[in-house]
Amino acid sequence: MNKQQILRNRPVGVPDEKTWELIETEIPEVGDGEMLIRNKFISMDPAMRGWINDARSYIPPVKLDDVMRAGAVGEVMESKNDKFKKGDFVFGMGGVQQYKLTDGKGFYKVDPSMAPLETYTGTIGMPGMTAYFGLLDVGELKEGDVVLVSGAAGAVGSVVGQIAKIKNCTVIGIAGGPQKCNYIKKELGFDHAIDYKNENVRRKIHEYCPDGIDVYFDNVGGDILDHALTALKKKARVVICGAISQYNSTDGMKGPSNYMSLLVNGAKMEGFVIFHFADRYSEALQALGRWVAEGKIKTEETVIEGIENFRDTFLKLFSGDKRGKLVLKV
Amino acid sequence: MNKQQILRNRPVGVPDEKTWELIETEIPEVGDGEMLIRNKFISMDPAMRGWINDARSYIPPVKLDDVMRAGAVGEVMESKNDKFKKGDFVFGMGGVQQYKLTDGKGFYKVDPSMAPLETYTGTIGMPGMTAYFGLLDVGELKEGDVVLVSGAAGAVGSVVGQIAKIKNCTVIGIAGGPQKCNYIKKELGFDHAIDYKNENVRRKIHEYCPDGIDVYFDNVGGDILDHALTALKKKARVVICGAISQYNSTDGMKGPSNYMSLLVNGAKMEGFVIFHFADRYSEALQALGRWVAEGKIKTEETVIEGIENFRDTFLKLFSGDKRGKLVLKV
Repeated sequence: MNKQQILRNRPVGVPDEKTWELIETEIPEVGDGEMLIRNKFISMDPAMRGWINDARSYIPPVKLDDVMRAGAVGEVMESKNDKFKKGDFVFGMGGVQQYKLTDGKGFYKVDPSMAPLETYTGTIGMPGMTAYFGLLDVGELKEGDVVLVSGAAGAVGSVVGQIAKIKNCTVIGIAGGPQKCNYIKKELGFDHAIDYKNENVRRKIHEYCPDGIDVYFDNVGGDILDHALTALKKKARVVICGAISQYNSTDGMKGPSNYMSLLVNGAKMEGFVIFHFADRYSEALQALGRWVAEGKIKTEETVIEGIENFRDTFLKLFSGDKRGKLVLKV
Repeated sequence: MNKQQILRNRPVGVPDEKTWELIETEIPEVGDGEMLIRNKFISMDPAMRGWINDARSYIPPVKLDDVMRAGAVGEVMESKNDKFKKGDFVFGMGGVQQYKLTDGKGFYKVDPSMAPLETYTGTIGMPGMTAYFGLLDVGELKEGDVVLVSGAAGAVGSVVGQIAKIKNCTVIGIAGGPQKCNYIKKELGFDHAIDYKNENVRRKIHEYCPDGIDVYFDNVGGDILDHALTALKKKARVVICGAISQYNSTDGMKGPSNYMSLLVNGAKMEGFVIFHFADRYSEALQALGRWVAEGKIKTEETVIEGIENFRDTFLKLFSGDKRGKLVLKV
């Protein structure tokens, strides 16, 4: 049987017990050109909150009564598809379920000998590539830049900071709590950490970036984005990668009141989603894999076990109760 | 004697009778390297509202008890400066006064035989150059783009729309009232006009741009910016030139709540001020002068007479009670 988390209701604010339902269905038959994947690790991403809103976005919303959408690493159990064979490990949109039947579109192979499987949901996967393209392309990173990143202990932010260090930048991370701040400074090599739960973020940004910020990589939105906008250098780049502080808001998004700083400084604010760079995934995955292998990027996953714990795990994305990439082990 | 408008108090919200004071002082003596200019037309610009706030910006605020800062076209009355001679007409930061003594820094000559003097405060001056660099450089305009511009009947917006038409774009302007809308459609050749005082702006944007906007040139901020953000095409460019709806606000700026549209569409929002392009003024002035001479850009000025009417004239910038460039005749 195939355990699946089904979207039953679109939540207002924080998803509750009525949002998803765990059901069991028959494992489907493999047809011509198809393969059956057993999911091993399901990728837990803040973007999933957006996918269950009934709103026009970069991909269609998950339909009611469909399996919840998620990236996943799995093992091919049976294949009638020329490109994949039994025993291959693959990443793709496997969904929050035990088994995925697919024609292989959007799936690619991963190498379990190079890195632990769960790393392919994180640093050598979508979050890593998000950091890579967001920082280097959208953020137009240059050697020596002053880089500020929020959500700095998370799956994307931790890689952003480490790539910026590889590129000889000064890196300041914003994270919640002394433990995470210690982690990004001591273990990941950030120059400074700002604890948004216990420090005056705006004052600390100006203290650590007395001449301003070249690149602000924003994962959180809200007040922290506004604080960062007060410290832009001329020609600064603000990368809009996410707004996790706003996703569960019930009274609308908070816009950045200080956006006129873009005018004063001739600066830009640019958004992206990883799908815009689909034709360059292999470039990013190779670079990330090499940096991980060389020990230049440290990866960390918080692994929770059990598909029945999906909702509780999902909520950890927003409570901040995790470090690095959050993964659900099937 | 030299009549001058002096900044006496920094206003909260709309400037009142205590903001400026009209005084008379002696006309100063011309020293070595200096020249004395008699101002003819003073340029009235929304940006002046920002210059009197006590806030860090792209130029220092006007100091209390100083002459109010303003661009102005004037005639050189006496010169001990090698670059200018008596009878030259010049543009520069002449201030809200009858006479300006200067070493010539930041002043350049204008040709009264090519266009009326007041045009050099508008289309062939700062506002025209603002439109030129904002649309072509910041907005990265391409032939055939769908261009939306707010403040479309104003000094900058009217030129933005006309340059976009020269570049074979589809142009939609947002302006206040049927008279202005008629003006930009019938006289300036915009494809569509949206009357924000009488029409549903968001619905009209989607009606006139069914496939979305490539470039949104924003002069107003507030709700209109938010409406425009709902209609971005992939890779759209939002040019932040001003936020006139917010300048007199007493409860802070409204940030654009819909800024996550930048993420969904891989779009950018970029600000600028004309001073960032100081090394390319002559390029822009030549192009603008040529388009005006060829009749491809129509210019209009609303001229109010009398330096004593400065504050009332200033307020017209925000009440919308003018068309094209607002100028104070000395």
